[in-house]
Amino acid sequence: MFDKVLIANRGEIALRIHRACREMGIHTVAVHSTADEDAMHVRLADESVCIGPPSAARSYLNIPAIMAAAEITNADAIHPGYGFLSENAKFAEIVADHGITFIGPTAEHIRLMGDKIAAKDTVRRLGVPCVPGSDGAIDDEAEAARIAAEIGYPVLVKAAAGGGGRGMRVVKEPERLSAEIADARSEARNAFGDDAVYMEKYLSRPRHIEMQIIADAHGNVVHLGERDCSLQRRHQKVVEESPSPALNAREREEIGETVVKAISALGYLGVGTIEFLYEDGAFYFIEMNTRLQVEHPVTEMVTGIDLVREQIRIASGAPLSFTQKDVRFTGHAIECRINAEHPRTFMASPGQVTDYHQPGGLGVRVDSALYSGYRIPPYYDSLIAKLIVHGNTRNECLMRLRRALEEYVIGGITCTIPLLSDLVGNRDFVDGTYDIKWLEEYLSSLD
Amino acid sequence: MFDKVLIANRGEIALRIHRACREMGIHTVAVHSTADEDAMHVRLADESVCIGPPSAARSYLNIPAIMAAAEITNADAIHPGYGFLSENAKFAEIVADHGITFIGPTAEHIRLMGDKIAAKDTVRRLGVPCVPGSDGAIDDEAEAARIAAEIGYPVLVKAAAGGGGRGMRVVKEPERLSAEIADARSEARNAFGDDAVYMEKYLSRPRHIEMQIIADAHGNVVHLGERDCSLQRRHQKVVEESPSPALNAREREEIGETVVKAISALGYLGVGTIEFLYEDGAFYFIEMNTRLQVEHPVTEMVTGIDLVREQIRIASGAPLSFTQKDVRFTGHAIECRINAEHPRTFMASPGQVTDYHQPGGLGVRVDSALYSGYRIPPYYDSLIAKLIVHGNTRNECLMRLRRALEEYVIGGITCTIPLLSDLVGNRDFVDGTYDIKWLEEYLSSLD
Repeated sequence: MFDKVLIANRGEIALRIHRACREMGIHTVAVHSTADEDAMHVRLADESVCIGPPSAARSYLNIPAIMAAAEITNADAIHPGYGFLSENAKFAEIVADHGITFIGPTAEHIRLMGDKIAAKDTVRRLGVPCVPGSDGAIDDEAEAARIAAEIGYPVLVKAAAGGGGRGMRVVKEPERLSAEIADARSEARNAFGDDAVYMEKYLSRPRHIEMQIIADAHGNVVHLGERDCSLQRRHQKVVEESPSPALNAREREEIGETVVKAISALGYLGVGTIEFLYEDGAFYFIEMNTRLQVEHPVTEMVTGIDLVREQIRIASGAPLSFTQKDVRFTGHAIECRINAEHPRTFMASPGQVTDYHQPGGLGVRVDSALYSGYRIPPYYDSLIAKLIVHGNTRNECLMRLRRALEEYVIGGITCTIPLLSDLVGNRDFVDGTYDIKWLEEYLSSLD
Repeated sequence: MFDKVLIANRGEIALRIHRACREMGIHTVAVHSTADEDAMHVRLADESVCIGPPSAARSYLNIPAIMAAAEITNADAIHPGYGFLSENAKFAEIVADHGITFIGPTAEHIRLMGDKIAAKDTVRRLGVPCVPGSDGAIDDEAEAARIAAEIGYPVLVKAAAGGGGRGMRVVKEPERLSAEIADARSEARNAFGDDAVYMEKYLSRPRHIEMQIIADAHGNVVHLGERDCSLQRRHQKVVEESPSPALNAREREEIGETVVKAISALGYLGVGTIEFLYEDGAFYFIEMNTRLQVEHPVTEMVTGIDLVREQIRIASGAPLSFTQKDVRFTGHAIECRINAEHPRTFMASPGQVTDYHQPGGLGVRVDSALYSGYRIPPYYDSLIAKLIVHGNTRNECLMRLRRALEEYVIGGITCTIPLLSDLVGNRDFVDGTYDIKWLEEYLSSLD
């Protein structure tokens, strides 16, 4: 097992990784920008190294500075968390070249799944259901028109290198096709330096359902069930739960077997998430994330498996500590993301947390690096806390979430707790009938 | 189901009960002394009523004031928590006489188990193993000498009405018997107004192992496994865990069956704990607590059962939501009691909590009514927080406890976290070889 892990991240996920390491008896190295000197994970880590100014490009994305910190501190592994360098194949290669273990999949798998067209081609060949569409990038307008006519309007045009909704267009009628493709190309070129786009069947009211998988270096692949992340705003997840209120046991088992088979054939290592749209009983592959997800705790709560601990074990060469048969799904879990944003306008609201009190008690978990007096810097993602609850039934879980939100105090800044409290009491959410469009429509209805 | 529950308690257990009620959609009424106006459960409850001055006798033990609060607020049930009126049979009767449900067993069962001699007689007849000793109170010196000779020295002389170690004497030799009995009688008379004493075999290095049971009004009785509470100081539990590192599966099953059989025969209703000393593979009944225990969370963590919720359900007449076969024990749980006391001298340390930060993350639960700025009043028990951790193995649990204690910040007062941190790292504790004498010996060794 590793002696020392460098945590190449910040915020709650850096703390999450630190905790897993502490519980495994592994020393931790925090790296941080000058804006994060007082961050909780920096305070708790065994060692810390300042790697640059607030700008992410010059600190948390600064590969030479991070590698220097790893060498100075003699770290034997690097955990990238999520975001930042977690899906940067080049970083994974550089880490390996330094004789340090990258806690994650191989650079090859990161690269493959980072290319959305190649990823789709690959998983389709491995039997994973995909949205019908262009098999790869669209070359010219005639081809685009032919494919769109074949799969039927509306169609979705997407940037091959895309993410976060950029370079994405819904086309409802043939007349708009050329113009929308041109727009998507231009946006993709600006955002990603790559104007390749592809086309897919547009699903009208799908849910976002993703499968968590984990694979070791000994050929063992296990799925840990699904997460329903349909409550989204601008393609950002807001609430996640497991199991999905929409799936039945047969669907869960079938899609689980499908992804395990595909991931096994891929020879993948580490944790990963296969994201699907789900509509009318059918799954459609969106993409695979080759890293830990923000919403991993809901899976931990229903399976009792510590995903970060397993990630670290697997990276060190250890076999998975369980088989598919050992995995038992117990009860229901829901995660709420709490952002330092105005709950209606979603304007960022950094600043000093003057008062901080976490809810506690049975079935309540808080993953947050906030503390009383902490100054939330304005430079990074606005996620400040994840509130995760577990209960025997979905209803118990909802009631527990409601009371935990009532107890949560984050003073001095504006945050999204009031929105989450509204959602917990909303009939559509309580009934579990929401889809990926529901939240934006709900928010519009408030205006 | 009840519409409104009055919580006749304070501190973390009042908050615990409030949380269970909130999660069941039941309104809550907090009662409080003038010293507890700013208590967290008072702030969170739907309604609150001041029932008297700081003195417990005039507030939390003030039955007329509590009954008036219940009538004014129209509460349909009263939860007594632990301590205070929780094992007061008269209070249970008065509550029932007012047409309000007492959330607990019948007055008859409280009374029976409150009389330590009658309790022992009763459970012995029902097949529960007891410590050999006098069958009831000792009448005269000759009888005492005869019984002591029969069971063999050392023997233990105990007050029939006792608790908390008062009126208790170890007698090592026949010469000391009369004098020690006289001392015990005098102490018992002063403490409890009753000088009846009885005698038992003295166990040299037993563990304290207790069985959690729960029984509904429909004849269903289930045991929820054991808790090992051997880490004690002056008969006060400090750390509790489940399962016990000392029991094997066969012993657990046998003692479980024994207590379920006895409790069924008794026609008992509600939650209860049958406390045993355990030495050389044998169990010896100590007493039965007819209420929720401080350490109930460790059972909740390993069974996934919300004991307070079940208590409330049962009191309302609902059947248990599970059978013995449904109960699955998963992983390991440990609870640490954090007291507002000096970690070496155990001097009480009330005062203002200037800074408060609870640990979070996977497998960590905090039951505490503290908050930043809260003034711990000097009038009550020094328990201020319970830190409970759950893990797949005992070792995982210990590592998690260690890191959670590292993260816990309680500023402005002195508390026992440093002692708990020492214990978590202690070889005997890690090995699980401790017994009820271990902690006091360990503390003496530090002097």
